[in-house]
Order: sequence, then structure tokens, then C-alpha cells
Amino acid sequence: MDTFRRIVLASRPAGPVTPENFRLEEVPVPECGDGQLLVRNHWLSLDPYMRGRMSEAKSYAAPQPLGETMIGGTAGEVVASRHPKFAAGDRVVGYLGWAEMGLSDGTGLTKVDTTHVPLSAYLGPVGMPGVTAWVGLNRIIAPKAGETVVVSAASGAVGSVVGQLAKMAGCRAIGIAGGADKCAYVVDELGFDACVDYKATSRDGVLDERAFSLQLKAAAPAGIDGYFENVGGAILDCVLQRMNAFGRIAVCGMIAGYDGQPIPLKYPQLILVSRLKVQGFIVSEHPDAWPPALKELGAGVASGRIKYRESIADGLAAAPEAFIGLLKGRNFGKQLVRLA
Amino acid sequence: MDTFRRIVLASRPAGPVTPENFRLEEVPVPECGDGQLLVRNHWLSLDPYMRGRMSEAKSYAAPQPLGETMIGGTAGEVVASRHPKFAAGDRVVGYLGWAEMGLSDGTGLTKVDTTHVPLSAYLGPVGMPGVTAWVGLNRIIAPKAGETVVVSAASGAVGSVVGQLAKMAGCRAIGIAGGADKCAYVVDELGFDACVDYKATSRDGVLDERAFSLQLKAAAPAGIDGYFENVGGAILDCVLQRMNAFGRIAVCGMIAGYDGQPIPLKYPQLILVSRLKVQGFIVSEHPDAWPPALKELGAGVASGRIKYRESIADGLAAAPEAFIGLLKGRNFGKQLVRLA
Repeated sequence: MDTFRRIVLASRPAGPVTPENFRLEEVPVPECGDGQLLVRNHWLSLDPYMRGRMSEAKSYAAPQPLGETMIGGTAGEVVASRHPKFAAGDRVVGYLGWAEMGLSDGTGLTKVDTTHVPLSAYLGPVGMPGVTAWVGLNRIIAPKAGETVVVSAASGAVGSVVGQLAKMAGCRAIGIAGGADKCAYVVDELGFDACVDYKATSRDGVLDERAFSLQLKAAAPAGIDGYFENVGGAILDCVLQRMNAFGRIAVCGMIAGYDGQPIPLKYPQLILVSRLKVQGFIVSEHPDAWPPALKELGAGVASGRIKYRESIADGLAAAPEAFIGLLKGRNFGKQLVRLA
Repeated sequence: MDTFRRIVLASRPAGPVTPENFRLEEVPVPECGDGQLLVRNHWLSLDPYMRGRMSEAKSYAAPQPLGETMIGGTAGEVVASRHPKFAAGDRVVGYLGWAEMGLSDGTGLTKVDTTHVPLSAYLGPVGMPGVTAWVGLNRIIAPKAGETVVVSAASGAVGSVVGQLAKMAGCRAIGIAGGADKCAYVVDELGFDACVDYKATSRDGVLDERAFSLQLKAAAPAGIDGYFENVGGAILDCVLQRMNAFGRIAVCGMIAGYDGQPIPLKYPQLILVSRLKVQGFIVSEHPDAWPPALKELGAGVASGRIKYRESIADGLAAAPEAFIGLLKGRNFGKQLVRLA
């Protein structure tokens, strides 16, 4: 094989992402130079943060350049190495992007052990999404046993881990998810105490806040002490009104506003009234958290105590549609693309 | 004198506070029983938090009961005592309410030394407002030397101390205040580096956010690391857009919404994008901060290093109008009522 396929950013989205924002290219396999290694990617991770990189708006990271390989987390196998720390056959995770192969000098690449943890899990519960859950829960929410923790996008790669870690910490864990099947999974499979289906109280994509709030109150009768926010918008408004005094909100994502929709916060005064702490964070800025988080998460997955679910698209060409589905909540669990 | 005057809450405001929400009463001076002391109040403090107590809406404190003496901080002199720890002639501060006299069992009453600090200052920079500034700045914003700290209501009892403490901490201190005279005072007298006059970029009480933001940018060219929030509304929207990564916002008040006006936060996603910490606080919930704060503030006032200004209304009957003026920003510095 002398060529491999990759997907580049063809244009920036004006509103929702469309398939035309991406372009599939076939490019030559590069030479593996001294100090370099060549990886065949088996899995590509699709994550909401990528939406932010596609825009030029101010964000915490530089925008994805046009015409270059889309950024993305990958897991794969070393096929050639002239790097002292890697050998052909090594399983590695890193950020080689939306591409079937990648050349690397080793930067950001980590060898992983797939004896007890499947390779793809290093892109989910034992990777960036899992550590994101761990940091938001332990470093920002810092829940005490007996407290109530709520997480939105609860069946997703991050949310599912948040709730399971909260349960391990002795908390009441409440999920928010879209659809009866996701909610059933969150409670029956993941062991959350309850899950509120926001789609059941929505019409034409608009949340009936009153009806949703009643459901939330029923699920969290003692109020909410910690909230892990992945979505923003009307759901955040409702949760804010149920927060207990001294509650903590970890802001991990606000997917409701990713296409430029206005998502004003209706009652910011509740931050004062309830003496809340609302804090945004990016997992990559907490490097010291990764080793303890990965140790705990790896042990949890290996033992089966931490459960997870994957939504798998087949082949690189399927990545754009899978990504668009992820942004619309069509995935169920961690969204991956199988590349090999 | 067998009677004294007090002001009770006659009705709850529906929208802005009106004089009719209050009622002046003349009541008999009570007997000073065993373990009690009687205080003649010299000063009544008027503070924005009182507005919250007048409503029945959910807040951090129980609402002020109808027909009872309005809650309020006072400074005065003991005129009779059958309490072992107080003697006639002692100067005391406490919460005896909107009243010329008060009977107390000593709870919440503190003897103060007026040798170097005037009695009224114990209701301002060396009292609750000063400690509020200290807690929000030191416990939440925690600024490092060289950082930029912005405070709204900068010429007020709390804001004026925030900026002066920020300067002492080696920060660039920027005020936001209404009117050229207040801004001149904040810079020329209090020593802030700059002050933005929001009234200069408002028309009919509505902020021109674009014009205001340009002024704010000119005053804080390196962005904003810490923001001490007293007002909320459109000003908060503008400040949020100028916050640097890892900025901290201490939410002390949101006076813009005290009459029930909607004050939505336009871009909550900036909390994530800029990885901000936004935290509400109430000074009474930080009891351990009071001793170190009062020590530093008392020394600062005694030495003249911390400056302050008072807006004095004469006589208890003037309190309702003075309070209404305070909510509208008509005061200039700490609003007091002289009672004796």
C-alpha cells in the first residue's frame, strides 16, 4: 500500500456542520525517517470539541487549519519505527487525526497495554473522555458522599463515566439524556439512580422547561449539589434553579451553542443567591490529573466496574456523517470510527 | 425620652422599592432587663442586600417579616447595661435595624475602639462592606501582582475597598462607575488606574455595549483577570468578553436584577472558552475571614492608606428615600443615615 486516506477541513461551517465541510483525500504513505514511526490507525475518536476547532471564533485552542488533516484522537499499531522508544507491533494512542495512517516523532504518542483493556477503550473511558469526567468530578465538583450529582449527555463517553464515578464516591447520580433507550441504559446498565429524558418533555426540539423541571425535581428531590455540564442552554437554566447552596458546576461543554445559537443563561443571579461555583475547564490543562485518573479508570474498566458503550462507524469515509450525528445526539455512547 | 422611632416593612415591593413600602412608627423605649443592654444608634447603614430581604423570592436569607423593624447594621453607644460585658458609654456595632434605639442581649454586638477609626467607618471600610471586599478579592479572585482586577460600583462602600486592596496587592485596578464625578474620585482619590463611566455610554438607562466595551478595552488593554461583580446585567456581559483565560469572577451582587428585571447572561459559553471560575459568596458565611480582614482594614483606615467616602442622610425619616437612591446609584460612597 503506497497511499492512505485522510479527511481535511474543506470549509468552515456557517451554522450546522455539513458533509461539504470535509474532503476525503488519498495521499502517499510518507517515508519513516530517523527518529520517526509510522502508525496504522485502528480507531478514530469523534468528540464534540472538534466542532469548536472547525470555527474561527475565539476559543481555547487555535482553529483547525483549512486543507489540513482534521484533528482527532486515534488508537492504532506501529507498522514501522526508526524511533528508539517504539517498535513495530506496539499499540499506541495519540492525536494522529482523521487519517488511516500517521507519521510521528513520538510526541503525544503513548504505548498502551491491551491485555485487560481493549484498544478502543483508550479513546473512551480510559482516555481523554474518561479523564475529562474524572477532572470535572474530582477537581471541580469534589462531591461528598450523600450529595446529588447530575450530569447531562449522561449516556455519552464523558457523562457515563461521571455518573459511575459519582456512584463510587457514594453520591446519588442523576443523568440527563435524550430518549427512553438512553435513559434506560443509564439507569439499568450504568447504575445511575435516575435519568431524566429531555426529549420526552421537548416538542420540535424545544424544551418545555416546566415539565422538564418537574421531572428533574422528582429525580433529585433533595436538590443538586454538583452538576457536570455538557450541553448548556435551557437544560442549564433548569438545573441552576434546582442547585443547593454551595453547589458546584463543572462546565465541560455547551454543545447547544456550538453552531452559534444564542444560549443565554436566564438567571445568573442564582450564582449569588445559591453561592454557587461555576467553573469551566479543559482536560489538557490538568496534566497532573492524568496519571491518577488513568490508573483508576483503567482498573475500573479492566474489572468491569466501569461500563461503557461504543457507537461505531465503519471506515474513514463515514466519519463526517458520524460526527454530524454526534453533534445532534444520534450516537449512543462513545462515537468511534473503525479504520482497520 | 420614653419613645423612639423605628421603620418597619409595611409592604413588599412589586418592582422598584417605593416609600410606601416602609412605615415610620414611634414605640416605647423598652426596659433593660437582666443580661440586656440598651443602645442609642448613631448610624444606620443602608446596603443593597436589604432589597433582597424585602422580597419573598428564594434567597440566601429569610425574608424580612412585615410589620417588624427593617434589618440593618448600626453603630451607636450603650446608654444602659445590665450585661456583664458592656457598660454605658461603650461604642458598639451590630444589627439593631432601622431604629433610633435597640435592646440587645449582646448577640452580634461588638465593642469598637474609636480612637483612630471613626465610629461610622465600622459600618463601611472596617465593617461588613470592607470585609465583603476583602473576602471576594482574597478568597475568590486571589489576584497575583501584575494582574488586572475590575470592580463595578467602584465608588461604593464595597467597590472602593476592592480596588484599593487590589492596588496594594500590586494589581492594575479598574473601576466601573456611573458618572464623571464618581470616576474622577475613583482614580484621583482612591488611586485606581482607570475608571469606566457606564453612564457616558448609556442612553435612557440602556448601555451601548459596543461603546462601553471599547472603553473597557482601553482601560484594561491586557484583558481582565479578576472581576468583582456588584451589578450584573449588560455590564457583566461586556466584562465577560474581556476576561483572560483562567479569570475569576466574584459575584457579590447583581443590583441590576433586584427589582425583578430579567438579567440574562448572554454568553455563558465564555465560562468554558476562557476557563473561568464564577463564584457567588456571602460575607457572613466566611466567619474565619473577619478577624484578619478587619485587622488589615482597620490599620488601613487608621493610617489613611484606605480612603472612603460617605453619603449621609439626616434622621431616620430620611432612610427610605436614601435607600431608594442607593438602589438607583444616587449615593456617592457608603450610604449612611445619621440617627444621633
